[in-house]
Amino acid sequence: MARSGSGTDAAGAAAGGPLAGIRVLDLSTIQLGPFATGLMAEWGADVIKIEAPDGDPVRKIPPMRHAGMGSMFLGVSRDKRSLVLDLTVAEGRETLARLAADADLLLHNFRPRPAKKLGVDYEALRAANPRLVFCTAVGYGSDGRYGDRGAYDDLIQGISGVAGLVGRHLGGDPRYVPLAMADKAASFMVLGSVLAALVHASRTGRGQAIEVPMFESLVHFVVTDHLTGRAFEPPLGEAGYVRQLSAHRKPFRTADGHVCILPFSDANWRHFFAIAGAPEDADDPRFASVGARTENTSALYTRMEELAARHPTAYWLAELEKADIPFAPVNSLEDLLADPHLAEVGFFAEEDHPSEGRLRSWRAPTRFGGTPAAHRRPAPRLGEHSVEVLLEAGFDGEEVDALIAKGAVRAGD
Amino acid sequence: MARSGSGTDAAGAAAGGPLAGIRVLDLSTIQLGPFATGLMAEWGADVIKIEAPDGDPVRKIPPMRHAGMGSMFLGVSRDKRSLVLDLTVAEGRETLARLAADADLLLHNFRPRPAKKLGVDYEALRAANPRLVFCTAVGYGSDGRYGDRGAYDDLIQGISGVAGLVGRHLGGDPRYVPLAMADKAASFMVLGSVLAALVHASRTGRGQAIEVPMFESLVHFVVTDHLTGRAFEPPLGEAGYVRQLSAHRKPFRTADGHVCILPFSDANWRHFFAIAGAPEDADDPRFASVGARTENTSALYTRMEELAARHPTAYWLAELEKADIPFAPVNSLEDLLADPHLAEVGFFAEEDHPSEGRLRSWRAPTRFGGTPAAHRRPAPRLGEHSVEVLLEAGFDGEEVDALIAKGAVRAGD
Repeated sequence: MARSGSGTDAAGAAAGGPLAGIRVLDLSTIQLGPFATGLMAEWGADVIKIEAPDGDPVRKIPPMRHAGMGSMFLGVSRDKRSLVLDLTVAEGRETLARLAADADLLLHNFRPRPAKKLGVDYEALRAANPRLVFCTAVGYGSDGRYGDRGAYDDLIQGISGVAGLVGRHLGGDPRYVPLAMADKAASFMVLGSVLAALVHASRTGRGQAIEVPMFESLVHFVVTDHLTGRAFEPPLGEAGYVRQLSAHRKPFRTADGHVCILPFSDANWRHFFAIAGAPEDADDPRFASVGARTENTSALYTRMEELAARHPTAYWLAELEKADIPFAPVNSLEDLLADPHLAEVGFFAEEDHPSEGRLRSWRAPTRFGGTPAAHRRPAPRLGEHSVEVLLEAGFDGEEVDALIAKGAVRAGD
Repeated sequence: MARSGSGTDAAGAAAGGPLAGIRVLDLSTIQLGPFATGLMAEWGADVIKIEAPDGDPVRKIPPMRHAGMGSMFLGVSRDKRSLVLDLTVAEGRETLARLAADADLLLHNFRPRPAKKLGVDYEALRAANPRLVFCTAVGYGSDGRYGDRGAYDDLIQGISGVAGLVGRHLGGDPRYVPLAMADKAASFMVLGSVLAALVHASRTGRGQAIEVPMFESLVHFVVTDHLTGRAFEPPLGEAGYVRQLSAHRKPFRTADGHVCILPFSDANWRHFFAIAGAPEDADDPRFASVGARTENTSALYTRMEELAARHPTAYWLAELEKADIPFAPVNSLEDLLADPHLAEVGFFAEEDHPSEGRLRSWRAPTRFGGTPAAHRRPAPRLGEHSVEVLLEAGFDGEEVDALIAKGAVRAGD
């Protein structure tokens, strides 16, 4: 399989990818954990999604064809297997412990007290498996005063400064970014952290407990750009990266739409003015050098806005590309689905899901030359793999039946 | 060392963290690579920042006290060492090859042709080091038609749909998110990808070449939320996650500022109306159940806006916390610097930089229980460690002098 995302593997389960051989017990819900384990699954890890009997709430977010199989769930759950355990039942907790004895990673986002009650407890699990990496994804670090607060994407965008920055940039009220940006930036921090711990475990045989807080992760995401003057004590000015916050930083209106234009070098600027039909502007002393342009940013951007509006988008896209001036179209979601580059790299793919019919999904972006990632399974129905996973783990048929009878395990339909 | 970020280690170089023992040659610039290797460095990797003689351009982004030591550079370069190599000189390329023979990871963001010319060439380097992970961070996947285009944060926000989504959400023109969101989301994809490849290399002894494209990474970031109806074929409606794009999704205005409020359960709503001074609203049939609230979203949010404006922010923050209703303040950058939780977890710290004076920086958010990360060094001056790194790698003093004389290597001031 030379390319990932090129459809389901015929064998149904042959693992490719750099994480082949890594076993993950994922008890997390919504996006904070599952976005990270979605990448791990596509990169070859055996990700067992352990769900409560009512399933990950993300299953219920519409649209969907059948209950419990919403679009977001379908996207981030490809290549995972679903095992339903009721951790409020003692035998459910025992089953989890038995599985954890042979896992590389356990990931969860319970708060500390419920976690312990449910048997999701590092001290109890490490004895049987010292190489286990045990990751708790939390809203706020447990060593600070917000440690018990619940966290959602909107709230973390507010408290981490993102919503305020959007308001400052637009000169209006604070607003959220219309993406689960906090969930996903923090999920990437989870991904990096668990993989770093797995590198260590692979080299030393020793696992560990780690905690990844969403709030701190987003502040880290924000301050890298925006600490600026406050990186110095005493300060060299206020916090906030001027270029990113500038009202001028926006796509330009064309005669019929918008385009992103970012001339860089002197040559880029000369070409830009020529394409725009105003070659004489390149000799305007306000625009003729990088120093002059920096001093006359407002005049420069005002002039760019005038010029951009003279031509339709298609003209700009074609001419900017020919002149090798950094540019981009402003795409809608529908534009992405029709983008020829994304088609050439096989980014989106359609496949037939056994219960949900024809679906469109996307692949993980990285190309691994030595261990090509290979999509293997469609997103699972609730409990679809409960029996399979337990049999594989060494439970016998009678044990599985007994667990199901006790309500500790539920098999899928 | 019980905590990361608690100041510079006395020994100056003792590596803690899960990546201790991993050696990284980082030839990347600005944020796409360096943000990822910043986390790796703080997590214990020995990150050697290999710079051209004029240095990473990010050094020049103000504010700064001294040339080449801008605030953003200072933040993402902590715990890295700087080696200046001129790869246009044959001996510079030979030096790189000799270092790569003993590295775990080489990361760069040159385009394919210049990369090869500069000796940054996987086929040439793998022979001497089969366990090397060689990562190329690119704007667009090299297997698609945009493969040769340059990429910048703004442009990728435009082409990946982010700018259009912001416009759609706000009911206006496309706008960028005022953060290097594309650089950093893609940098996280770089981080996850190289760590996955390092897990594989640790387990098998085999490295590989990998490519991480920024455009595809951002589309992946966007469509996880927003594919929605287009996840199905035929579609179940248009693409776009209604809740995230709703005009109602915003922080609420209070009597003197803003606050994020996200009541969830029926009890949350009852408490919210009580705190707001309108307990009777809890019995309004439009708001009394989750079904009714979903059907009457507009009326509900309009009512919330009216109620939120009745009280000042401090009232809301205190009362929402008491009632355990999910909430958050809307923080400015200055608020973050004064936040008591961040102080308790030691998120920001001050230290004295040998040349730049008193600085404020931040720590990586993850708590590694078994391998606490430890900040070891301040950000390096250009070429500060050129000689040290080469001597450590087995070059002798005469060789180093010869390399400097040839201009292949530059030592710092």
